[in-house]
Amino acid sequence: MSNVLVLGHKNPDTDSICSSIAYATLKDKLGEQAEPVRLGELNEESKYALKYFQTKAPRMISGVSEETERVILVDHNEKQQSAIDIDKVKVIEVIDHHRIANFETSEPIYYRAEPVGCTATIIYKLFLENNVTVEKNVAGLMLSAIISDTLLFKSPTTTNQDIEIGKELAKIAKVELEDYGLSMLEAGTNYSDKSMEE
Amino acid sequence: MSNVLVLGHKNPDTDSICSSIAYATLKDKLGEQAEPVRLGELNEESKYALKYFQTKAPRMISGVSEETERVILVDHNEKQQSAIDIDKVKVIEVIDHHRIANFETSEPIYYRAEPVGCTATIIYKLFLENNVTVEKNVAGLMLSAIISDTLLFKSPTTTNQDIEIGKELAKIAKVELEDYGLSMLEAGTNYSDKSMEE
Ligand SMILES: [Mn+2]
Ligand SMILES: [Mn+2]
Ligand SMILES: [Mn+2]
Ligand SMILES: [Mn+2]
Repeated sequence: MSNVLVLGHKNPDTDSICSSIAYATLKDKLGEQAEPVRLGELNEESKYALKYFQTKAPRMISGVSEETERVILVDHNEKQQSAIDIDKVKVIEVIDHHRIANFETSEPIYYRAEPVGCTATIIYKLFLENNVTVEKNVAGLMLSAIISDTLLFKSPTTTNQDIEIGKELAKIAKVELEDYGLSMLEAGTNYSDKSMEE
Repeated sequence: MSNVLVLGHKNPDTDSICSSIAYATLKDKLGEQAEPVRLGELNEESKYALKYFQTKAPRMISGVSEETERVILVDHNEKQQSAIDIDKVKVIEVIDHHRIANFETSEPIYYRAEPVGCTATIIYKLFLENNVTVEKNVAGLMLSAIISDTLLFKSPTTTNQDIEIGKELAKIAKVELEDYGLSMLEAGTNYSDKSMEE
């Protein structure tokens, strides 16, 4: 049987990139092989986080059905935000923090959505629930996702859980939350400025 | 603000009845008031379980929108299996073990679906995750739901989790699993026989 692919949404942001890596890591540790993939180019913010935490970017793919029969969606559920051929494969799990729409399955699946600020917040809880240790770099990536989605806890979607878990992850990742967060957000902003100049 | 109602599907089975009671109990213990309700008559099996574990049946309602603005769905998600006026209220949570279809929200919600044999199996995990003690009668009702949905672990939808959790619940409920299970299933069957004779 082919590998399970873990994919975030089109035009991937830092949550889609980092949550796909983190969840594939959890799956691997639970003995279920899974590969993180992405549906588009990395933005500068995500590149900064991946470089800082010394992690390879997920492999870029254009469609899923020639690769696998089974996928896990993170950070999205709506069909139009997913792989163009998503209807040709089986979605076996969803981990998300968005409204549910344009989504349906023919069989029972694992669907975990919570109204929190970031998918990575939920994935950290899944590490805990499964008693799997979170390693430094994966913690750093989940922290990066939370900082990105909540704009350093300033977005209106931020919940107490995002803040508490963000702080815990910063300890595991051995970074000063505010310093790292501002540098990472700045890395994303710099790029926009640069591309406007170009 | 009106109470949150916790409701199972139309033509309620033992899982819909007992999971609505168990989840409302968990919510109450977490300080969020919630009332279990039902959309139809109790079957004989459910009556047996409620009587055995000395628990009042959920209040029967015909629609939700005159009662509340917010509901939690257990043991179903599809619109046509829910209250006739479900579109007029806000679904704030779903706890279920069925396929996802004919369901959508305008905002992020808590959605917890797992491919296990019974909703009560998931609800027991939620008690554990929230560090809430399960009391004897509620344990007995969750056990009843698992026995009903899995036909005493014999249905093809039964998972290891249903079996493990069923055994734990039997200990808390202080019943011998097989004996209680057969009596409960029989109570349901007797009625079918009787109504055929009548
Ligand atoms: Mn995203
Ligand atoms: Mn996100
Ligand atoms: Mn049911
Ligand atoms: Mn059920």
